[in-house]
Amino acid sequence: MSVTAAKGFTAAGIAAGIKQNGNPDLALVVNNGPRLAAAGVFTSNRVKAAPVLWSEQVLGGGQVQSVVLNSGGANACTGPKGFQDTHATAEKVAEVLDLNAGEIAVASTGLIGVTLPMDKLLPGVESAAAQLSEHGGEKAAIAIKTTDTVHKTAVVTSEAGWTVGGMAKGAGMLAPGLATMLVVLTTDADVDTAALDAALRSATRTTFDRVDSDGCMSTNDTVLLLASGASEVVPDQGEFAEAVREVCADLARQLIGDAEGASKDIRIEVINAASEEDAVEVGRSIARNNLLKCAIHGEDPNWGRVLSAIGTTSAAFDPNRLNVAINGVWVCKNGSVGEDRDKVDMRYREVAITADLAAGTAEPVVIWANDLTAEYVHENSAYSS
Amino acid sequence: MSVTAAKGFTAAGIAAGIKQNGNPDLALVVNNGPRLAAAGVFTSNRVKAAPVLWSEQVLGGGQVQSVVLNSGGANACTGPKGFQDTHATAEKVAEVLDLNAGEIAVASTGLIGVTLPMDKLLPGVESAAAQLSEHGGEKAAIAIKTTDTVHKTAVVTSEAGWTVGGMAKGAGMLAPGLATMLVVLTTDADVDTAALDAALRSATRTTFDRVDSDGCMSTNDTVLLLASGASEVVPDQGEFAEAVREVCADLARQLIGDAEGASKDIRIEVINAASEEDAVEVGRSIARNNLLKCAIHGEDPNWGRVLSAIGTTSAAFDPNRLNVAINGVWVCKNGSVGEDRDKVDMRYREVAITADLAAGTAEPVVIWANDLTAEYVHENSAYSS
Repeated sequence: MSVTAAKGFTAAGIAAGIKQNGNPDLALVVNNGPRLAAAGVFTSNRVKAAPVLWSEQVLGGGQVQSVVLNSGGANACTGPKGFQDTHATAEKVAEVLDLNAGEIAVASTGLIGVTLPMDKLLPGVESAAAQLSEHGGEKAAIAIKTTDTVHKTAVVTSEAGWTVGGMAKGAGMLAPGLATMLVVLTTDADVDTAALDAALRSATRTTFDRVDSDGCMSTNDTVLLLASGASEVVPDQGEFAEAVREVCADLARQLIGDAEGASKDIRIEVINAASEEDAVEVGRSIARNNLLKCAIHGEDPNWGRVLSAIGTTSAAFDPNRLNVAINGVWVCKNGSVGEDRDKVDMRYREVAITADLAAGTAEPVVIWANDLTAEYVHENSAYSS
Repeated sequence: MSVTAAKGFTAAGIAAGIKQNGNPDLALVVNNGPRLAAAGVFTSNRVKAAPVLWSEQVLGGGQVQSVVLNSGGANACTGPKGFQDTHATAEKVAEVLDLNAGEIAVASTGLIGVTLPMDKLLPGVESAAAQLSEHGGEKAAIAIKTTDTVHKTAVVTSEAGWTVGGMAKGAGMLAPGLATMLVVLTTDADVDTAALDAALRSATRTTFDRVDSDGCMSTNDTVLLLASGASEVVPDQGEFAEAVREVCADLARQLIGDAEGASKDIRIEVINAASEEDAVEVGRSIARNNLLKCAIHGEDPNWGRVLSAIGTTSAAFDPNRLNVAINGVWVCKNGSVGEDRDKVDMRYREVAITADLAAGTAEPVVIWANDLTAEYVHENSAYSS
């Protein structure tokens, strides 16, 4: 159901010819109101794609009427021409749907450093607009795929009568400061911009921002949350924020499960840190250790590589008190050899690493990562050629 | 010639049976004076192997009579037993050679989290001592190899009559704060501990510390410089420091050229940064970008991945003024598309990336890295099993 699970939204996904292989590559999502509230978070990469620069401005106004998304080209590092192209895309949507270009967000994904084929994209906007439907959410989710093998959607419905739904894409360049991904969330709950923004920032901080598939931060990451108010129900803010978090967590987990070339999904939990910041730093350092990622791929419970990754951080810990469990077996105790590593069963796709810093009482932090495989190398050494 | 190129040193390398495949695994280097000055730098990983903890103490005294090195086991994360084993190793060398255990440095390399087979190692020390020779440098260099395919040595001789020579090992877990490596340098120049220390720190800062093969920092990195004074020549400090730097640069380049599974050596030069710190941060970020490393492997001049890596740093730059050259072709100009990427010839093992930050007048900084290959994944997913 994706972005059209919530009332008040229509969507479409079509093949505009941006991708040379003819696959769907253009999606349109429209908020039909009565509310037009919106919140957004964007990549923290300082090299930002043209659509990110554009959409950040749009979100500043707190209202979004429509989102137009394309795969097949990131429109990043494309100079003034790239920004003009993003602007022209928004203007085209405004013209076709009789909307205000200043309230139309744009998102792009694909290869960096290549300008978009506007002769394909602009007619594509007209086709997509003609196909807008309350059942168009799935087609929109399909049209934003790049190297994703499956499209990703999630929905949570409240007994109070409102819904949060969404779609996501992302398979590579997945790292904190948002994974390389485009996400559009919609809700028919009657929520104002400030409440939307609070719910979205709180949710992304512990979901998308804690996905670290390959340590590479994108120029295009975009997460948008649009509220139509069409359910006419003002939700409990706590329940609403939790629903947004659940949808984000569900989509983030799907991103990890479909990461480029990965054979394992690694759940890294850092416990007993002195602070949440320490726990996140340690989790990310473990998530980004190529040698460990290779070991996990080889189903090798190589806890020494976990310790060497922890050792590069500034977190509070005593090397002689560190404990590490892999799939529940405490293979490292007090910084040294623990339980028999042969007890560790690593046959399944999900692998759980627990790093006990024995340094404090911070809440556990979970970072999700993937293993490093020959398929990842192959897919990313041949991507642009 | 290695560590015995300089006068006053003997060395040996033997197979003690630490490695199960019977390859050489134990090396001994002895300074026969008249001087016993020494300097050392060690891993900045906070999880340090027992031999690193031991040798840091030894170096505190400023004198080293002998260095004993083993491959086949890192003796890291081995608890109190590991430290006792290192201590016992130094005591054994002291006993056999009638030296002071407190002036014997120990270095180990291999798998983390496994204790050393002392029943093999201690008799090995006796065998190695019996084979000490002024021609033993090459055998010592061979005995410290792990996944290295070749042994690494370098020598610089001054017209003034003194020599600096050395050996190195290291093929994986190669990253700043010293690559995963053991390096022993020797000189017969008549230099005191303070001058040795200054020359070594200055040299490693711009050589070994700027090697970033795989972003993984070891628990065991050790670089030692021993001076025998046997040439009876007090060198010009500037010339001496430059000789040490040359030997370090030569060995560091050899480490990159033999990195695990690598098919490309990537020379990343950062120019026109606002400061040396900025240039190093940007160089390391580029060096560690897995997507770029895959692209280089695929001979794909994917400059967008260079920009996205620069964008994750805190260095001073304007995204619209960044320029990137790959093998001399400025494929990115002013943050956007530059010269035709088809002009880039990437057939050779060495690939040069130049990142122009256009932000200042700092001296250029060079970081060396490797590509990411299926062979790296294979080698490191099967290492401990």
